[in-house]
Order: sequence, then C-alpha cells, then structure tokens
Amino acid sequence: MTPEPLRIALIGAGRIGQVHAASIARSPRATLQVVCDVFEQSAQDLAARHGARASSEPEASIEAADVDAVIVASSTPTHVDLMRAALRAGKPVLCEKPIDLDITRVEGLRGEAEGAARPVMLGFNRRFDPHFAAVHARVAAGEIGRLEQLTITSRDPAPAPRGYLAASGGIFRDMTIHDLDMARFFVPDIVEVSATGYRHFSSEIAELDDFDAAVVTLTGAGGESIVITNSRHSAYGYDQRLEAFGPDGRLAVDNLSDTVVRAWTATSTAAGEPHQQFFLERYAEAYYRELEAFVSAAVADGAGVAGATGVPGFADGRSALILADACEESARKRHAVPVDLR
Amino acid sequence: MTPEPLRIALIGAGRIGQVHAASIARSPRATLQVVCDVFEQSAQDLAARHGARASSEPEASIEAADVDAVIVASSTPTHVDLMRAALRAGKPVLCEKPIDLDITRVEGLRGEAEGAARPVMLGFNRRFDPHFAAVHARVAAGEIGRLEQLTITSRDPAPAPRGYLAASGGIFRDMTIHDLDMARFFVPDIVEVSATGYRHFSSEIAELDDFDAAVVTLTGAGGESIVITNSRHSAYGYDQRLEAFGPDGRLAVDNLSDTVVRAWTATSTAAGEPHQQFFLERYAEAYYRELEAFVSAAVADGAGVAGATGVPGFADGRSALILADACEESARKRHAVPVDLR
Amino acid sequence: MTPEPLRIALIGAGRIGQVHAASIARSPRATLQVVCDVFEQSAQDLAARHGARASSEPEASIEAADVDAVIVASSTPTHVDLMRAALRAGKPVLCEKPIDLDITRVEGLRGEAEGAARPVMLGFNRRFDPHFAAVHARVAAGEIGRLEQLTITSRDPAPAPRGYLAASGGIFRDMTIHDLDMARFFVPDIVEVSATGYRHFSSEIAELDDFDAAVVTLTGAGGESIVITNSRHSAYGYDQRLEAFGPDGRLAVDNLSDTVVRAWTATSTAAGEPHQQFFLERYAEAYYRELEAFVSAAVADGAGVAGATGVPGFADGRSALILADACEESARKRHAVPVDLR
Amino acid sequence: MTPEPLRIALIGAGRIGQVHAASIARSPRATLQVVCDVFEQSAQDLAARHGARASSEPEASIEAADVDAVIVASSTPTHVDLMRAALRAGKPVLCEKPIDLDITRVEGLRGEAEGAARPVMLGFNRRFDPHFAAVHARVAAGEIGRLEQLTITSRDPAPAPRGYLAASGGIFRDMTIHDLDMARFFVPDIVEVSATGYRHFSSEIAELDDFDAAVVTLTGAGGESIVITNSRHSAYGYDQRLEAFGPDGRLAVDNLSDTVVRAWTATSTAAGEPHQQFFLERYAEAYYRELEAFVSAAVADGAGVAGATGVPGFADGRSALILADACEESARKRHAVPVDLR
Repeated sequence: MTPEPLRIALIGAGRIGQVHAASIARSPRATLQVVCDVFEQSAQDLAARHGARASSEPEASIEAADVDAVIVASSTPTHVDLMRAALRAGKPVLCEKPIDLDITRVEGLRGEAEGAARPVMLGFNRRFDPHFAAVHARVAAGEIGRLEQLTITSRDPAPAPRGYLAASGGIFRDMTIHDLDMARFFVPDIVEVSATGYRHFSSEIAELDDFDAAVVTLTGAGGESIVITNSRHSAYGYDQRLEAFGPDGRLAVDNLSDTVVRAWTATSTAAGEPHQQFFLERYAEAYYRELEAFVSAAVADGAGVAGATGVPGFADGRSALILADACEESARKRHAVPVDLR
Repeated sequence: MTPEPLRIALIGAGRIGQVHAASIARSPRATLQVVCDVFEQSAQDLAARHGARASSEPEASIEAADVDAVIVASSTPTHVDLMRAALRAGKPVLCEKPIDLDITRVEGLRGEAEGAARPVMLGFNRRFDPHFAAVHARVAAGEIGRLEQLTITSRDPAPAPRGYLAASGGIFRDMTIHDLDMARFFVPDIVEVSATGYRHFSSEIAELDDFDAAVVTLTGAGGESIVITNSRHSAYGYDQRLEAFGPDGRLAVDNLSDTVVRAWTATSTAAGEPHQQFFLERYAEAYYRELEAFVSAAVADGAGVAGATGVPGFADGRSALILADACEESARKRHAVPVDLR
Repeated sequence: MTPEPLRIALIGAGRIGQVHAASIARSPRATLQVVCDVFEQSAQDLAARHGARASSEPEASIEAADVDAVIVASSTPTHVDLMRAALRAGKPVLCEKPIDLDITRVEGLRGEAEGAARPVMLGFNRRFDPHFAAVHARVAAGEIGRLEQLTITSRDPAPAPRGYLAASGGIFRDMTIHDLDMARFFVPDIVEVSATGYRHFSSEIAELDDFDAAVVTLTGAGGESIVITNSRHSAYGYDQRLEAFGPDGRLAVDNLSDTVVRAWTATSTAAGEPHQQFFLERYAEAYYRELEAFVSAAVADGAGVAGATGVPGFADGRSALILADACEESARKRHAVPVDLR
Repeated sequence: MTPEPLRIALIGAGRIGQVHAASIARSPRATLQVVCDVFEQSAQDLAARHGARASSEPEASIEAADVDAVIVASSTPTHVDLMRAALRAGKPVLCEKPIDLDITRVEGLRGEAEGAARPVMLGFNRRFDPHFAAVHARVAAGEIGRLEQLTITSRDPAPAPRGYLAASGGIFRDMTIHDLDMARFFVPDIVEVSATGYRHFSSEIAELDDFDAAVVTLTGAGGESIVITNSRHSAYGYDQRLEAFGPDGRLAVDNLSDTVVRAWTATSTAAGEPHQQFFLERYAEAYYRELEAFVSAAVADGAGVAGATGVPGFADGRSALILADACEESARKRHAVPVDLR
C-alpha cells in the first residue's frame, strides 16, 4: 500500500524554485500541486512542465485544501510572511535561506516557528550533500576522535549581477551564511566570531561597500577551531571543500567534476576536468535529499524538525544569521565578537 | 506538445530486468507497459511496483497492440527467438548481451537483424558510461592524436554462483565479452586475438575447465594495440578502468566510490572508500543512458541503429561473440587467432 | 679550476647542527672545519664523523683564521651574540631562526646586521623546499594572476617535550613563525594580524598558558588574504601544505610520503603511506638547498643577502618575530593588531 | 673505525658510466680509482671530475693492484670479455645489462660466472627503485596475499637515434628486457611467453624490421599472470608504472614528477607537472642504491650475489635475455613460446 504522495505548493518559480520542482518530480512520494509566482507567466510555465496548477496568490496557494505542504522559494523579503502563513495554516514548510536579512524580523517569528506543531525546515542544502554528510557521519562515529579543527573553503565561480549583490545583505549574509551553517552542522554551538573582509578584484562590490572575499574564524563552545575561506570568484569553477581534523586523523572532501577522466600531455599530468560549475550542478543530489527529508518530516506525525538529527530547522536559520551579523561586525570593527546562539 | 511515452514490454523480471524497469520509471519518454517472466510471480511483483501489467507469455507480450518496443532481458538461450519475434512484429528491440553463446545461432539471425526496418540494439551498457564515453569523445576529437594503445582492466568483485558459471559459456563469452565490446567501441575492426587464461584462485572454476582470470591482446586493423586484463575476483570492489594512449598523450578512467571523502590516519593517507561494489551501482547511469538511447532510436523514424554513432547494434553483438570465441581458441591452442568481423 | 671549498664553523652540534653537517658533507663547495658545542662530547662526536676539529669556544671558532663562514645552530638565547661575533669578524653567517624571542634584543642588532658587509642569512628552510619554491616561482611568473589568497596548513606530528615548550616562547614564536615567514615569502609586507589560540588536547601546554593550536589571518599591504592553520599534533604525520589562489587559478602543494605506492583493499582505496614524519625528513632537500644558497652568497663578493631574491635575511627574521608578537597580542586581546614591518 | 673505501675501476665513460661515477662520489664507502674508455678524452674528462686516473686499456684497469672492484659500463659487445677479465682477476663485477645480445655467448660465460668466488651483479637498476622495491617488500610480506597478476607499463619519452636502434637487438632485447627483469623480480620462474609487436608511429623503426611498441604476456611457474605494455614514445614523459594484484588487494606505483605541485585553471584541475623526463632522473636514487648494494656485496666475504635477496646476478641477466629472445620468437611466429630458465 503506497501512501498518497505529499501535495506541495511551491512559492517562487525562479531558479531555485525550478530545482525544487525537479526534485519533486523525481520523488515518488511527492507531487507538485501548485506553482505560485508574482510573475504569473513564470508560474504558468513551470506549472505546465510539471502538470501543476499556476497561481499568483501565495496565501491562497498555501491555504488551498489540496495542498499538504509548502516550499518557500520566493525572494528573501517575503520569507517571514510566507512561513507565518504556512505555520498558521498548520502546514509543514521548507523555506529557502535566509529567513530574513534583518534579525529583528527573524526574532519576531521565532516563538511561533519554534513552537510549531508541524515541521519547519530551512533550505541549507549542503547538509544533504552525500560527501559532506559522509564526513559528518564518520566524525560522529568517532573515526577521527573529538573534532578539533574544521576548514571550509567556498568560492563561487563569479559574482552575481550588481542588482542581486546590492540586495544580498553583503557577502557574510548572502554567501558565508552557507558556510556558517556547515560549521554549525558539525559544531552547533559557536561562541566567538572573528572575520576579515577583503576587496581583491571587484570594483563593483567595493562600490557597494561590500567585500569580495573573506576569512572567518569561529570558536565552538567546546573550544573547536573553525576556519572559513571565501571568494566571490574562482577560475576553475565552484570550489566547495571541507576538512575535519581530530586527534586520530583527518577527513576531507575535495571538489567534483562531471567525470573522473584524467589527461596526461606534454604540459601537464593527471589533469581532471574543470569542476562542476555552480551549485545547481554540484548540489543537485543534495537538493533531492533535502526534499526527501522534508517529505519524511511532513508525513511523519511529528512536530518541528529536530536539529539534533542534522536536519536544519528555524533555529538553524536564526543562528546562521546571528553569526553572519557577527561576521559583519567583526570585519568592520576589527575585533572578535562573542555570540550567544541560545 | 510532449509526445506520448514509448510503451515498453520488458521480457525478464530478474536482476537486469529490474534495472531496466527502474530506468524506464526515471525516463519521461518511456512507460513500462508489460512485464513478462516465465516465473509469473516475479513478473507480477515487478509489474505491480511500476503500474504495468504482468504476463508469462513473451510472444504475446511482444505482439500486444499497446506495446511499442521490446526489451529482452530474459535468459541467454531465449534471446535469438525473442529478438526474432520482435523483428517480425516490426518493433524496436533492445536485447541484453550476448545474442547467444553459439555463433551459428547468431549467424542464423544475422540477415533478418541487420536488414531490420526498426532499431535492434544490444545491451553493451558500458558504452553509455559517462566516463568511458567522455574518453571516447575526446579520442574522437583528436585530443591524443591517433589512438595507438588501449588498456582495459575489468575485475569482478567475486565469481558468480557455480550454476551461473556452468551455463555462462566461460570467462571469455561471459565476462571478457564486455571488454571486447569496449575495445570495439574504440577500435571497431579487430584483426587478431591472442589470449591466455589463468587459474588463480577458484577450484570450482577450474573444475568447470574454465579460467578465473585472463589476459587478452588484440590488434586492430589500423595496427592498434589493445590489452584486456580480467579477474573473477577483486578485494577492493568492482575494478573497471580504461586507458587510451596516443602520440599526444593519455586519457584514463579510474574507479569510482560513492563519495569523494578521503581519510588520513596513523596508518595510511588519502584513503578513499571502497569502490562501488558491482555493475548495478557502477553502471546505474550508463543503464539509464542506454535506455534513453534506445527510446531515441525507437521514436526516430529510422532503421537499425548505426554502429558508427557508437550505439551498439546486432553487428556489435555478433562481433563480440566472434572475438570471445577467438579468445577461447587462442587460450586453448596457445597461438594467435586471426579474425574477420565482416 | 674548482675553487677551494668554503670552510665552515658550525656552532651547535644538536639535531639541527647535525642536519647542517650532513648538508655540508653533501656539498662539493663547502667543508666542515670546526664543530663547536658547549657539550664538548657532542662537538667531538659530530666533528669526528666529518673530519672536522672540535671546540667548546664559539667566539674562538668564529674568529679562527681557517674559518670562512659561520653557521649558528646553538640555543636561541645565544643567537644574537654569536651573529654579532660573526659580523664583527667580517664573516658570512647563517643563523637558525628565531634571531631571539625578545624583539628589543633583535632591534639592538638590527643596524649592525642590516648594514653588514657580508651575507647574513636566516634559517627559514622552507623557502628552499622545491615544492613551495616551485609555487613561489609560478606565482611570480603570473600563472594565477595577482596573488589574492594564500592558505598555509602546518601541523606537527606531536608536541615537543615540556622543557622545550616552556622555553619556546609559545606556539606563535616557536611554530607559527615558520608559517609567518612562508606568508612573507609570498607577501613580504603584512599590515594586519588577527590570531586565535586554541587548547584542543594538551593539558601540559594549557598549564604553560600556551596554545596547542592556532588560526592566524594576515592582511598584506596589497590587500592579500592569508590564513595559517596550526596544530601541535597530527596523527598522520607532519602536515605541511600550501595553496595560492588568484584570479586565474590555484596552485597547491600537498604532503609527501617516502614512496608513491598506493594500496587498494577491502576497506580502503588508493591509500598512500603515512606522510614523512617530521621536518628532518620532509625538509632534507630544503636544508641542503639552503646551505647551497648560503655558500653561493658567501663566495660571491657581495653584501647582505637580498630579501628580494627570496633568500631570507636578518630583516626576515625580525619581521617574523614582529608578526609572532602581534599574533600573541591578538590572540590574548581578541582584536586585530596592525603591524608595520619597516 | 671506518673501513677503507672500495676502489672501483669504471669501464666506460659514456652516459651510464657518468651515472655510476656520480653514485660512487656520493657513497662514503666507495672511491673511483680508474676511469677507462676507448675514447681517451672521455676517460680523462670524467676521471678529472672525480679525482681518478684515466685509462684506455680495460684489461689493465681491471687487473690493477689498486682496484678492488669493477663496473662494466662499456658497449654491449664488450661485456662478456670484460666480465670474464674481472672474474679471472678475482674481482667483484657489476655489469650493465644486457650481458650480450647473443645467448650463446652468454651461455659460454655461464659456468664461470655462476661459479664465481666473488659477486657478479647485473645492472637491472629498477629493482633498486624505492617505489618498486616497496611494492616488492609489501607483496613479499603478504599484504595482498599470493601474487596473481602483475601489470608493468613502460614507455620511453622518444626513440633513441637510428644508429643506437640498429645495434640495439630490437625492442625486446633493448627495452622490454628491463620489464622482463622486473617481472622476474616478482616472479622469478617464468614458463611461457606470448608477445605481439606493433608499428604505431616510427617508419624508421619499421625500416629496421623492429617494433615501436609491444605487449607481452608471461605466465609464471605458479600460474601467475604478467602483462607488459611498451611504447617507444610518450608525450608526457617517461611512463614507468607497476601494479601487483592478489586476493587481498592491489598495490600500485604511479609516475613521479619533480614536485607535487598541482594546478587548477579554467581548463583543467589538479594538473601535475610533466613526469620526470627519462631514466637518469627517474632512477637516480635507484642507481645509487644499486651501487650501494654492489659495495655491500663486494666488501662482504661472500660469493656470487644471491638472486633470492632480489639483487640481480648473472642468472638474472641470462634469464632476461632468454625471455627477450622468446618475445621475439613469439612476436614473429604468432604463437606462445614455452621457456625453461633453469
């Protein structure tokens, strides 16, 4: 007896909304019921491709009787209101990061979200990447002993367009936030942040008074050491690496290419293909596993998704933003910033 | 306007039949219409999982009006008759390798198959592996100059059960045949075969007067050199490698593991996970791409699949068997065996 | 016409003195004339092995008429006085790092050392490592464009004995100082230091109010970003890596093992041997090339070794100590520390 | 009490003679006493560089009272006579491979050489390579269980000049012979040879009725399977690899480059430097260890070097030539050739 698939309303038909739609299509346990976007044509195009109905009214889509769960993939400023609508409709919700760029708006939703009867999940997709998740599991199993140092490298292939950057909240809230969550995947309780921002190459980003590269040092409550290195460009493609170090050894994830073919020529040896270009390719499997985790949480007769299992919830979205804010403060004021994530 | 999906009859509900069923489920262009197996319960189980109907009568399944194309994944001795049935029903057919273990039976079907109005495709799945296919494309593009040497390593994790081995036709016709086809993927015209069989570890295989390992040297019509190394066991999992060598360099495919995680400990460095265990894991993507190629051929208004494009057809199944027979002869008689694949 | 070999007085017959003696023995351009150590037996043993004479009086050894050049490899507190003796004797001197743990003593020698008529060289051996030097040369040649980010990983296999640690000046002046010099090899002018110290595993080090791990972020005068990650232990051997990143790509040095043999078993794949255990093995070639650079400078009719060529001189020893002091201050006071190395 | 160094007469001042001279200079246990070459100027130049005396009379050099041991590095046709001279002078001799290109001449010396009171060693330098030797030691220690398959890849960067090739005895006696000895390093007793020669690229080599590439399959007395792949050219430098396979796993040696630097760019990832160009670079350490083994054998009060320890003796030189002859026969007659190395 296969249960009925989970009927999902997808709010936002942009690039990331399309990723979620593809994951839903791949899942035997979910079906795309509604696609909603303020640009009606976008909603209609994506809905048509997946046999769903289109809408331009998010609240109505969320509240529809034939919708079991909600994925919020619209623009950041709409996240808080749409999560609230889903919470009030008593429906499980998966919201893209960040919850909001303003921590006071996040705190305003906190009580409702953390006390919710149904799962609230944040779209920190990298936790579901099979490679990072394998390191997480092996560290948890004690393979390298107690975690001492974590090194996260994250470089985008190229900066986003100026319009996106101007509204992004800056490198720490827009880009580093993923790495801050990856840090918390391994070390949930962070007590201090020290960050330095750099202007290496982009006059456009400098004009926005933003940074195009950054180094962040975090200290965990257990004294763990975490380093994040970021750049807004990378000639060789999306650079997403991680290294965990403990008394008994080291575990590391290197980058991936589409094939494992290597080439030897007169000028170089064992040369691989360029890495997978960006997050849609690199994290395709992670997005699918994220969707599967959401479906599992939604169909289980439980409350909010427990952070302890590694599935990111509201508290994780809030913590990441607090850390990003602390990065910004540290980078501007040139001193370490103590944080309290409780 | 999405066209109607291709309605497929799958003959054989065993391990490889289940792989094809999964590929069909994943494809938006195909649907599983009938599952047929002499073991009715197997057919019913697989059909139920995929919303198809079950049958125990292959000819009726092939001829059914609501069936557009046929996949033959039943036992080897049935292949020739079922391919003939599909050919006579005017339906595209994808048949698992080998066509038959007896070259005279293969020759008996040759005229009909090579003159068929609809596509006849052989299940040499490795041609569709993204890694091997990438080397093939790069060699074809001239990256290493004219191909001079090809090295193929193929080791199974462990021997099949005795019953399977006894009916397998021996290592050359059962296992090496895949590597012989891979050789022909790069060098279609082979003119000489030299093979040595070994008995390294299995008394069971020795009792069957078969070999548990082999080395095969082939010479192409253009003077190319090809070496195949086989073993029926491998402690570290399925070993599937390939190296192409030309005047301008070398291209190689190494084995794959489920993740790219590497570990450093007091006893070893940069250690990866064991390789993907066997062909169902290693070639999952290849099986899917094979199905897609079959669907493309079936929906195109064309005749037999052209070997020139690298999609394996009847002639490739026949050639591989001729080469396997030549291996057997060379291994027994201890001399090189000239072959003529025309 | 081969010139007469450079006759060297070696002050200090301990572990590092023995490394220099071995390098001299290997060099066709140098000969070990005197070995001097306060422990007369140590001097005699090492001298006997290399056909040199033994002494327990450093000044006399330095001033001896048959000595052309001096290597100072005695304990840190003796460095300033022995360098001064060599300078006053008008002899080229290669001194082990650090010049001293007290910057005021270093500044006291500065005028004399930087104005010296003969070469003064500091023992930052890693600059001579063929691997790091190759990255340096390729960056200098513009292969990755203007250097933006530099990542240095440096982990010792295990902490030194308590007695050594207590007199070491702390992790930044004893261990990180090598990495600070490596940073300056690529980015000579550093303008800001931010450091965090950690206590991951050693209660002994904690009792000394020292750190057993550290993360240091440096900013170069050209806005470059540099990260150093340190630990006083490493299960898999000496961990010495470097990564240079620029707009056109990345260059990296990984660790070395004694052989390139890799193993595949039922539990792991492509596993290398443990890394070379510690600096004597890892940097054997670097020590030799350092000695060769010293001989070249000594026999040339020139003045102080020019830092511009990458050969480390007095100014480099002083700069590294200033940076180490700044690390200590930053780690204690939890803010970034501006530095001025002029 | 350091013993007096072994005084060596070096016959042959060409490329390989110079390698031996450099090894002797590096060894604290040996000294170069005489350099002898039919080209007197060559002998004088090399002798001058190493403080030895020059000679153009090999017999006199061998018999000189101040000569303890002999290295024969002259042209192949002189090897048998010079080895005989050394044997009759009662002096240890290290002779470059091959003993001779004519097996009857080798057999003519066999009795004298195998019954010699002093060590007779053959210059199969690759046995002393630290990487191959490490695999040999680990196989011998049982790490992969009983050896089943051995794969040897050996490709020269480019063909030697025509004059050299014309006198070389052909690819099997000149090039493959090294690989045949490597095979025998792991599997001393070979019982069957099957070889195929190829003409891939060189019209010059074809005109000499020689091959520019080859594949050789060997069978050991214990049923082991060995494959050798050769080419006379390689765009990416000297290609020298080995893989040992047994029931418990696989051990492999890959190629070496001068540094471990890897590069990531817009067009490729993790690209290493080209491999070490040819045998003088790749086997520099092996040549030195070979010399050390010869010195050890010479100063020991023993008889002929025992093949069991892996140090190659006269029997190994003879066996390699028998196998090379069998390769030639197999490649010409297109059948397997049984061999008996006793």
